[in-house]
Amino acid sequence: MKKVKVIGAGGYGGVGIVELLLNHPEFEIECLVAKTETGMKMSELYPHLTGFCDLPILTPDAPEAQGAFDAVFCSTPDRVGMNLAQAELDKGAHVVDYSGDFRFTTAEKYSAYANFIGLDPHHAAPELLPQTVYGLAELHDIGPDQKLAGNPGCFAVSCILGLAPAAANKLIDPKSVICDCKTGVSGAGKKPAPTFHYPARYEQVNAYKLGGHQHLVEIEQELSELAGELIQITMTTQVVPTCRGILSCLYGNLNEILSAADVLDVYKAFYADKPFVRVFDNTAAIGTAQVSGTNFCNLIVDVDERNNRLRVISHIDNLMKGQAGNALQNMNLMFGLDPMTGLNFAGRCP
Amino acid sequence: MKKVKVIGAGGYGGVGIVELLLNHPEFEIECLVAKTETGMKMSELYPHLTGFCDLPILTPDAPEAQGAFDAVFCSTPDRVGMNLAQAELDKGAHVVDYSGDFRFTTAEKYSAYANFIGLDPHHAAPELLPQTVYGLAELHDIGPDQKLAGNPGCFAVSCILGLAPAAANKLIDPKSVICDCKTGVSGAGKKPAPTFHYPARYEQVNAYKLGGHQHLVEIEQELSELAGELIQITMTTQVVPTCRGILSCLYGNLNEILSAADVLDVYKAFYADKPFVRVFDNTAAIGTAQVSGTNFCNLIVDVDERNNRLRVISHIDNLMKGQAGNALQNMNLMFGLDPMTGLNFAGRCP
Amino acid sequence: MKKVKVIGAGGYGGVGIVELLLNHPEFEIECLVAKTETGMKMSELYPHLTGFCDLPILTPDAPEAQGAFDAVFCSTPDRVGMNLAQAELDKGAHVVDYSGDFRFTTAEKYSAYANFIGLDPHHAAPELLPQTVYGLAELHDIGPDQKLAGNPGCFAVSCILGLAPAAANKLIDPKSVICDCKTGVSGAGKKPAPTFHYPARYEQVNAYKLGGHQHLVEIEQELSELAGELIQITMTTQVVPTCRGILSCLYGNLNEILSAADVLDVYKAFYADKPFVRVFDNTAAIGTAQVSGTNFCNLIVDVDERNNRLRVISHIDNLMKGQAGNALQNMNLMFGLDPMTGLNFAGRCP
Amino acid sequence: MKKVKVIGAGGYGGVGIVELLLNHPEFEIECLVAKTETGMKMSELYPHLTGFCDLPILTPDAPEAQGAFDAVFCSTPDRVGMNLAQAELDKGAHVVDYSGDFRFTTAEKYSAYANFIGLDPHHAAPELLPQTVYGLAELHDIGPDQKLAGNPGCFAVSCILGLAPAAANKLIDPKSVICDCKTGVSGAGKKPAPTFHYPARYEQVNAYKLGGHQHLVEIEQELSELAGELIQITMTTQVVPTCRGILSCLYGNLNEILSAADVLDVYKAFYADKPFVRVFDNTAAIGTAQVSGTNFCNLIVDVDERNNRLRVISHIDNLMKGQAGNALQNMNLMFGLDPMTGLNFAGRCP
Repeated sequence: MKKVKVIGAGGYGGVGIVELLLNHPEFEIECLVAKTETGMKMSELYPHLTGFCDLPILTPDAPEAQGAFDAVFCSTPDRVGMNLAQAELDKGAHVVDYSGDFRFTTAEKYSAYANFIGLDPHHAAPELLPQTVYGLAELHDIGPDQKLAGNPGCFAVSCILGLAPAAANKLIDPKSVICDCKTGVSGAGKKPAPTFHYPARYEQVNAYKLGGHQHLVEIEQELSELAGELIQITMTTQVVPTCRGILSCLYGNLNEILSAADVLDVYKAFYADKPFVRVFDNTAAIGTAQVSGTNFCNLIVDVDERNNRLRVISHIDNLMKGQAGNALQNMNLMFGLDPMTGLNFAGRCP
Repeated sequence: MKKVKVIGAGGYGGVGIVELLLNHPEFEIECLVAKTETGMKMSELYPHLTGFCDLPILTPDAPEAQGAFDAVFCSTPDRVGMNLAQAELDKGAHVVDYSGDFRFTTAEKYSAYANFIGLDPHHAAPELLPQTVYGLAELHDIGPDQKLAGNPGCFAVSCILGLAPAAANKLIDPKSVICDCKTGVSGAGKKPAPTFHYPARYEQVNAYKLGGHQHLVEIEQELSELAGELIQITMTTQVVPTCRGILSCLYGNLNEILSAADVLDVYKAFYADKPFVRVFDNTAAIGTAQVSGTNFCNLIVDVDERNNRLRVISHIDNLMKGQAGNALQNMNLMFGLDPMTGLNFAGRCP
Repeated sequence: MKKVKVIGAGGYGGVGIVELLLNHPEFEIECLVAKTETGMKMSELYPHLTGFCDLPILTPDAPEAQGAFDAVFCSTPDRVGMNLAQAELDKGAHVVDYSGDFRFTTAEKYSAYANFIGLDPHHAAPELLPQTVYGLAELHDIGPDQKLAGNPGCFAVSCILGLAPAAANKLIDPKSVICDCKTGVSGAGKKPAPTFHYPARYEQVNAYKLGGHQHLVEIEQELSELAGELIQITMTTQVVPTCRGILSCLYGNLNEILSAADVLDVYKAFYADKPFVRVFDNTAAIGTAQVSGTNFCNLIVDVDERNNRLRVISHIDNLMKGQAGNALQNMNLMFGLDPMTGLNFAGRCP
Repeated sequence: MKKVKVIGAGGYGGVGIVELLLNHPEFEIECLVAKTETGMKMSELYPHLTGFCDLPILTPDAPEAQGAFDAVFCSTPDRVGMNLAQAELDKGAHVVDYSGDFRFTTAEKYSAYANFIGLDPHHAAPELLPQTVYGLAELHDIGPDQKLAGNPGCFAVSCILGLAPAAANKLIDPKSVICDCKTGVSGAGKKPAPTFHYPARYEQVNAYKLGGHQHLVEIEQELSELAGELIQITMTTQVVPTCRGILSCLYGNLNEILSAADVLDVYKAFYADKPFVRVFDNTAAIGTAQVSGTNFCNLIVDVDERNNRLRVISHIDNLMKGQAGNALQNMNLMFGLDPMTGLNFAGRCP
């Protein structure tokens, strides 16, 4: 069994990977680290794990946390992983970081991202950037040689997977792309806040960060790279009162007249060998519930034929394909395992 | 007190207008009619009305329902009101119909609508169409001479109010308009269905009617009329697990370079004397909860300046400004009353 | 118009009374005071009030807050109102306090309460206690001579109204009473906390404060007084994922064999002239939704005839009959107004 | 792999067992049968199963459904399984039935149950009753000799597990037991109904079946058998707006003075070797969310020491330990497997 350390274990990204690893045949959780709630058992913080994960949550500098691990998940905010990764790599670990720290492969790209969201534009470990990969295995080859990956943002996964076949096949006008994205509340993380307080949220739908969500940068990077030209999007992020789930409506003007069936063929071909993407036609009766708790991305591919406009409805679980599930998919690949190992389940209904 | 009859009293549109009329100083409910649940008291069907409205629900042909009323609300599906309106008008009533029956002022326009949604294209009372008005008082003068009005569709209210100033001022490219609309579940009405069963819905967000929602036709009619040119939209309707509320994200490419502040001025001017439309800038922390239970439409006016694209976030309560509240606003105007009579309240929080 | 000051305006108890007063024919809000969010307009904190209540929230010691007001609502925690009331009374105000400070008419009773919940047992203004009244007008005469009232706890309202007729008529064994109470999340107030964070709450039902909820003391006080003997209850408080609403199941062994119909008669007689209590038999299809947004208490009166045990299901809106609505009912009475003034509405559905 | 047939595959009980079997190392789904939705693929009815279970739903008399299976789950209403079981047993199957048909081991007991809920009191296969077992393995030995089991009712599981140690140790007065039970909406099954329509339910808490829930009979049977004396309960069933989860508050007067710690010891001893029951003291911060999606029953054991009254808070997932999970636990045991096979997971949070 490969030994795993989870940094930032107490948040939703941490408990998410812990839950997955508990059922994984090759990985074993050895060490949980966080900055808060240290000293508690994981099962005291998350009582559903009683009897399953009773490990203590250690401070980052606890002696027991300094050993060598095979796999390290950094479920940490921006600018934490960049300061930790080298040391873990040096001890032989494979590292998947959840933040923006390793989603960009040059210091320039990182700076552009950091500037967009108001962070220090200087990466703390620029020498690692050539080694990292944008951790979306549907677009990038991630194999056993990969030691470091930047797990994508949750909205980014939904938008990129929904538009990648169109971008790669140059189907759409690069100036016409609109991403209208709705997320469940768990996307905001575990920390209580007035806008996520139950009474304020249970009947609330609202748009936020109109000035620009941080995931916009990586969406434009990935789509532009696929298209070979700049794709500059309009993105609107919204919160709806579900716990989990992202539904993104993705629009782009088609460059030539295509039917829904035409585009469906393109999408099915693009994702033919990608086990976590399921492509549906525009009659499918699906929503976010049909991916809840799973690592799948379900796409409805449609064309508004009156306006010759592509419309894709992209569904993921923001905590799974949008976070911990995708992180495990990456780690599987980085150890040469089948990407579905520990992720081959359908979820539950209702 | 003016005497009111409500046809279709048992549905959400019926109970909505009943609740409003109970607190109205000029109108008094005299007669409730429906096709189902007849014989029950209104307060048996809706026990929160116990002691407030204990009238029986009559069959449409009950003798007590044949009298003359001052005001008649037809909270009925398509093709019901068109067969009832003349008789009520003949007895001196003012009639507001909730369906598509009186939203179009010519038989041709009605046919186009009916064809779009698969109804019989022949209107049953085409001679009434010149007398009707599209019942959105923010765009049409509705006064004491008006005897008949077609109350708009709920999505249509949110989209039209959100785009009218831009259309009227020719700010946007008519081929670029996208309406991404999310509604609470009450928009589907009172009748149970598998997709609105609580366990199937509580964690579900989904798009539906991708082929074209019935409200699309009236949105295009109204916006095109304002713009003086054809505005043909892409519209995506979605259901989110709230009870009430529509949030529509409305997009259009600006014809010239404008800032958010520029467009905000246009909107504020357009709605300066419209009491039910509140215009906010793009820093407002509002969502559907801030209009819940009220007749207000709250608009956030924004421009994605990177792409010179207008973005308006439009919020209404689908059962109020999207249905019963707007119907009462119309009826108030048709009796020469202040439009806010019986509607001048802010709702509650949480 | 009588001038009103609300202390603690920013919380749910504050916004609740503000919403009610906006529609009240006799009261006018003049002054809003709070310890936090000062300097904001009320409508900035609660944007649904935009155009309805744009008053600033003042600090308690702001000069504008020192004037004389006709009515003062203290929507404040324990041990705040007791330090403010005398000064407001001296300036001629009628005072309704939401906390435990004025629910007990002797220093001894207050001490017992304070000890039970771990507060300082010394009341700061014991000389006021003989002037106060337990503010439940269904049990106590509250009239224009009353200047000070202690508004009851939300759970207490539901339990006391549900058991008062049985206690007063000595129907039940005083050692057998169990109150199993479920509240919506708004009962916890506006302040965010991990257990009320949307993702942690949306699918959660839990019991809490098993050691004893603070409302237990006043329930026992009021029921014992009615019964003329000590009624010592077992009380279990639980949170369910609604916003509003308390449903309490109340049990007690009947002292003699009675049918459900017998007990129903007792309850109907007891509440015959109480406008806010509605008594239903055990076939009623009602729940918390049927009192949401209203000042009503709906009671289902039942007997488990197999075990000769009284069972009452009591429903209130915790923020209305359980808080602001009941406070207004008290203030109406303290000014000699009809208790239903500003409260005579049925709520909405759905 | 053992071959499995699921009868009643289209309901929540059916899809629940299908989901579990998909991840089970010893069982394989071979045949799905139902009376409705026949001809559809399971993954058309439940699209989250796309690629996981694409089997067709057959009519009961389809030729492909007539073969011999190792295990048959009857996820069917009362009086269906009793007519099917013999034929399946004759072909060598082990049968677990979800209804009341096989929860009683004599025709007399069945009649009493059937009379209580208004069914035909004559069992259709009384000769099978001596072979069946009440399928709660925490109380009954279920081993490889067992061919037929009656899976308990969901409320019954929560109440019986919560009171069994007290009953077996004669801790409580048998006339004093009250079961106050709250269930999520999925307990009502998949069929839409007005009271489970999303808008009618999202803010609703209500009691129902005050006259007596069908699970009462088996609770009294099991507890009385453990106690060796008649335990006749008062039971109140309520619906809260979660999808899954039952929380039952269970009360009984203690026969002698015991502390919470005393009773906790009794419960821990009783369940020492029962892997699916977790016993917590009265400081535990747990609710229904902490068992959601799992086969665990979490018990908080408490004593109201003021009244010397036992109080147990029992938490299960109604669709797992209350239905499909418990059914699989039974089937595991009936094949000599570890009861946790395919059930050894903690669920997810949030």
